[in-house]
Amino acid sequence: MNYPFAQRFDGISGSEIRKIFALLKEPGMISFAGGNPSPALFPAKIFAEISEELLLKHGAGILQYGGTMGLTSLINLLKEEKKDVMKETDDLIILTGSSQGIDFFARSFLERGDCVLTESPTFLGALQTFRLSDARVYSAKLLDDGVDLADLEEKIVRCRPKFYYTIPTFQNPTGITSDAEKRAAVYEICKKHGVLILEDDPYKELRYEGEPIFSIKSLDDAGIVCRLYSFSKTISPGMRVGYAIADQSVIEKFNFLKQGADVHTSNLTQAMICEFLKRGLYEDHVRELIRDYSVQRDAMCGAIDLHFPDWVRRTDPKGGFFVWCRLPEGFDARILFERCVKKNVAFVCGSSFFADGGHQNTLRLNFSMPSVEQIEKGIRVIGEQLKEMAEE
Amino acid sequence: MNYPFAQRFDGISGSEIRKIFALLKEPGMISFAGGNPSPALFPAKIFAEISEELLLKHGAGILQYGGTMGLTSLINLLKEEKKDVMKETDDLIILTGSSQGIDFFARSFLERGDCVLTESPTFLGALQTFRLSDARVYSAKLLDDGVDLADLEEKIVRCRPKFYYTIPTFQNPTGITSDAEKRAAVYEICKKHGVLILEDDPYKELRYEGEPIFSIKSLDDAGIVCRLYSFSKTISPGMRVGYAIADQSVIEKFNFLKQGADVHTSNLTQAMICEFLKRGLYEDHVRELIRDYSVQRDAMCGAIDLHFPDWVRRTDPKGGFFVWCRLPEGFDARILFERCVKKNVAFVCGSSFFADGGHQNTLRLNFSMPSVEQIEKGIRVIGEQLKEMAEE
Repeated sequence: MNYPFAQRFDGISGSEIRKIFALLKEPGMISFAGGNPSPALFPAKIFAEISEELLLKHGAGILQYGGTMGLTSLINLLKEEKKDVMKETDDLIILTGSSQGIDFFARSFLERGDCVLTESPTFLGALQTFRLSDARVYSAKLLDDGVDLADLEEKIVRCRPKFYYTIPTFQNPTGITSDAEKRAAVYEICKKHGVLILEDDPYKELRYEGEPIFSIKSLDDAGIVCRLYSFSKTISPGMRVGYAIADQSVIEKFNFLKQGADVHTSNLTQAMICEFLKRGLYEDHVRELIRDYSVQRDAMCGAIDLHFPDWVRRTDPKGGFFVWCRLPEGFDARILFERCVKKNVAFVCGSSFFADGGHQNTLRLNFSMPSVEQIEKGIRVIGEQLKEMAEE
Repeated sequence: MNYPFAQRFDGISGSEIRKIFALLKEPGMISFAGGNPSPALFPAKIFAEISEELLLKHGAGILQYGGTMGLTSLINLLKEEKKDVMKETDDLIILTGSSQGIDFFARSFLERGDCVLTESPTFLGALQTFRLSDARVYSAKLLDDGVDLADLEEKIVRCRPKFYYTIPTFQNPTGITSDAEKRAAVYEICKKHGVLILEDDPYKELRYEGEPIFSIKSLDDAGIVCRLYSFSKTISPGMRVGYAIADQSVIEKFNFLKQGADVHTSNLTQAMICEFLKRGLYEDHVRELIRDYSVQRDAMCGAIDLHFPDWVRRTDPKGGFFVWCRLPEGFDARILFERCVKKNVAFVCGSSFFADGGHQNTLRLNFSMPSVEQIEKGIRVIGEQLKEMAEE
């Protein structure tokens, strides 16, 4: 049957990354391809205890329909915690993962033919969501200290985007962090041109060096910023709990969309996160993550510097999950990928992260999942292949 | 700030039912307004045990990112269970509640200006989702044995809908069940005119009398039906787990949308449902629900027949959660509602369930939440108010 699918699917062929997932299950494969937290660091035992206790004590409430905005106790706790960010006219809604916030923000504002502006490169999931929202996606070049401000303003003037999507801290895929001056300048440029900002910041708390930088939302006297929060990198992605803070009229639209999308986020996972926070376990847990991930980050950056030819450029992430590499023009990361996979090492080619494709000479390396041994071994293999390719 | 929201929100003001929820929390209020399962019947204790065991045994997997299609073990179990319904070209995807399937089906097919056809009246959540999909919503009159076939075909010819949305069994809000002949005729009419069918059937298993009727999907040799399944009425709505079966090209679109919507449904609630089914607890549990709910249904229908004036017409539900009442033309259920609320009894006025509003003389009564005592007391109060209104 020839189904009359909506036009928005034209050209959508599914996430490139998801397609190689099958490959990664090969035994012995060292994968730098994913973006997952380390399963060794999940607080599974505590959650086993918490889930049992919650269901025994509050089962009738947890198993019943809940409010679309989220569990009241979790909302109140998060509002208190984020009171420096929240303005009087702001509201907070619990989401089924912060990705849902990208989807809802897109559907709140985008109509066929509208334009959205992202960083170049940017998060693949966001690119797909914006395309499925019937939007045209443009992007502004990302430099080592954040977006290229001249390019940002030029694109804003030329494309009149409804909003600018940014991951300011330890960005996916590059690991780049916008510095304080850039954040302030981005906010002023967007405000001047009436462009909203969607600030997605899931890696922020996983900082391995340096001082935290204020969020763009914290500058927001005009009500143009929606900030997304995630527990996926710090507690568990499988539980699907995140939240958004924005002007209450924006959150009202999220609420309307959520009534249809999934009515509300699973009460059990919300209550489990709430209890984990209430017990004061979060700070210590994040400290433990930082301790382990920083060792993995050091191992990867050290191994790249040791094993990759010096004509490979890498970013210098101060946190998060990713290092981004750029090969000289003319090198094709897809060929490198094919050669490395034969040696049981995988990564993600960078092209998919660009709104317009291209950039075949880039690749993303994840260091949160592999062990230090895997990192050292795998990076050496990639380095060998790079050298061989250069000699051919 | 004047936010440039998308046009799709024009005229959307949130669910009428959700607005009266605050009212229902008044102490002593007898509510026939909700659509919730009885919390007394939730298997909370078993789930406490199951959740603890799953997290201790499989915590690293459950807390990690999962596949967008759902948990493999749950998918395989459901495919086996539904093998009579599934064709070779069909696929199955786990959803964050079956409402997500309404949203995804709408976004798979509807573009601005497209038309969708529903039963009149129909599920409020579906109406809102279709409106937020930029669609024009038309509806065909529902009779006591299912849709008015002449009206259905006339509307199809006139409006050329992309699809027809139907709740064939113990429909929300009316409790009406499409009989076998109607289902076959609806399928043939839609097939003849190239109209897809979205079959939403969450109440099917809660049958208190009579024999089960085949699904429309089971007739589907042309691949035009997407069938939605829910565990919200039989196990727990708070866990947000449902699924859809449709042609694999349709499920592929669901997968694309789900990658952006919430990446995947919470692994923990999926695994808990899977374990509940695997342990063979489901059938006995549903039998227990039927035993209790049928007593509540009998109490409500009996009380209506005893206390309501004989000029009130009611439906005769053989299952599900709802009885639907029609007052004579000129009576306004909103006035009845205001009078009853003063006496601590609430219900939902019927108008919201109609795509075009109107029908102020209708109301929906829920019998799954209130106790038999509350049903007898509350229905008597409504009956008294009806008689008083008639005398004024």
